[in-house]
Amino acid sequence: MSVSMLKAPCNAADQLQALAQCRAHAAPLRLPRRRISGVSFSAPPRAPVVAVLDRVAAADGEQSRLAAAGSGNLADRLRLGSLTEDRLSYKERFIVRCYEVGINKTATVETIANLLQEVGCNHAQSVGFSTDGFATTHTMRKLHLIWVTARMHIEIYKYPAWSDVIEIETWCQGEGRIGTRRDWILKDYATGQVIGRATSKWVMMNQDTRRLQKVSDDVRDEYLIYCPRELRLAFPEENNSSLRKISKLEDPSQYYRLGLVPRRADLDMNQHVNNVTYIGWVLEVGRSFTSS
Amino acid sequence: MSVSMLKAPCNAADQLQALAQCRAHAAPLRLPRRRISGVSFSAPPRAPVVAVLDRVAAADGEQSRLAAAGSGNLADRLRLGSLTEDRLSYKERFIVRCYEVGINKTATVETIANLLQEVGCNHAQSVGFSTDGFATTHTMRKLHLIWVTARMHIEIYKYPAWSDVIEIETWCQGEGRIGTRRDWILKDYATGQVIGRATSKWVMMNQDTRRLQKVSDDVRDEYLIYCPRELRLAFPEENNSSLRKISKLEDPSQYYRLGLVPRRADLDMNQHVNNVTYIGWVLEVGRSFTSS
Repeated sequence: MSVSMLKAPCNAADQLQALAQCRAHAAPLRLPRRRISGVSFSAPPRAPVVAVLDRVAAADGEQSRLAAAGSGNLADRLRLGSLTEDRLSYKERFIVRCYEVGINKTATVETIANLLQEVGCNHAQSVGFSTDGFATTHTMRKLHLIWVTARMHIEIYKYPAWSDVIEIETWCQGEGRIGTRRDWILKDYATGQVIGRATSKWVMMNQDTRRLQKVSDDVRDEYLIYCPRELRLAFPEENNSSLRKISKLEDPSQYYRLGLVPRRADLDMNQHVNNVTYIGWVLEVGRSFTSS
Repeated sequence: MSVSMLKAPCNAADQLQALAQCRAHAAPLRLPRRRISGVSFSAPPRAPVVAVLDRVAAADGEQSRLAAAGSGNLADRLRLGSLTEDRLSYKERFIVRCYEVGINKTATVETIANLLQEVGCNHAQSVGFSTDGFATTHTMRKLHLIWVTARMHIEIYKYPAWSDVIEIETWCQGEGRIGTRRDWILKDYATGQVIGRATSKWVMMNQDTRRLQKVSDDVRDEYLIYCPRELRLAFPEENNSSLRKISKLEDPSQYYRLGLVPRRADLDMNQHVNNVTYIGWVLEVGRSFTSS
């Protein structure tokens, strides 16, 4: 299964296209034009990027950073993850929990996406980026810059079952002048078999102006020291599907699905609808409740 | 915060009252009368208990048991949990993940309920009960009997934050002639402080007739060997709130909430709407999206 999606700011910005597609089992979803508490779900092309966080979240950042620092050592000691030997990527093992599997008794797409997020956060923290959920460098915090996901492509070849152990490796790299990328490789830890791959593109946004910003040399210097020296891609093949543009819907009205509005439980610690919620919405379209 | 709720069979049976209440922050919810794929959300009083699983799930049981057995050793080795020294309870540590916290940056009620389920499953598996998600004994499987949750009461005194480590201890005990109970104690692993307690009552149901059944001596003998010899309660205080009847709604029409229908993602490996989904629905009622 392959999923490409756009994270929180589901808006078209100058350099970005708003893309939401789930290729294998579900039809694309056109999100309703609806606005709740400052989170926007659709916007006209070329509009400025709408907030993915608000000032409350920003003000809370310092507090949660302090809290995380206090308990960080214990969690780091117990966690089944660490930087790799060359310190240029991070690996963590996860045991699939009973509530993380769906009707077919294997991990749901949402579980996979959640674990990608978790391992990304843990990687960022382990190299000293901020622990407020934004994984910013020192200079970024000084200049009120944050990363926002622009695109994510996930391919899973074998969904793990309850109690299976999966090992996820992740690393970051520069991506042109305006962004960075994070890749992941998922393995069945018992056999070493690659069961999935994923890649994502991130851009830097000014938290105050909500505009995208080029990655300055200062910021680049701060994070490139933690990145592989040579280009390393989860999808190294030429013309692989992660590179393909997501085609436009011929008749978007076919793919409307009403009633998929944010619930309390869809909001994450930055008070915005989490990217995994969008994946869940896409997957609700065109699916029946019966097993298949 | 305290939550009492009834699991999947949201129906009134002879010996049970269908109860759904969330005391502290949300008003009770009367679920809509709606039926999808054999999962029932409301039924007249004194109706037989409606299925919490179907034959497909039952047939799949053996398969998932085999799958779990194959990978069990690796997961058991890596898991941060095990039976306690006297082998009469089970403890496991969990690091709160970045996607398990809500807008206030602490674990959501759903996260807590999920972890209670996970630690219960792992306990049941560690003493050799079935690994299909039903935690049945040998005799129960022979007679097509399963456990269904009748009531659950959760109290959390301090919600853990992202990266906090919590330790959950759980154990089972007999409960009259028709049921059993499972209790939990949640601690902040860094300080040893009790941050929550929970208890639940379970009854035995015949999978074919869908009727409740008394727990026979054979079954009792099979599981009591793993239970504390003397009564041990997570809520030992007299007249504690876990014992109180949930009062009837004066005007149930006040607490209707439309649109809370099951999504694909609400179904668990037994193909029924998971109990945590019901908790989530209750919490959606009367809540605003703004932080508080």
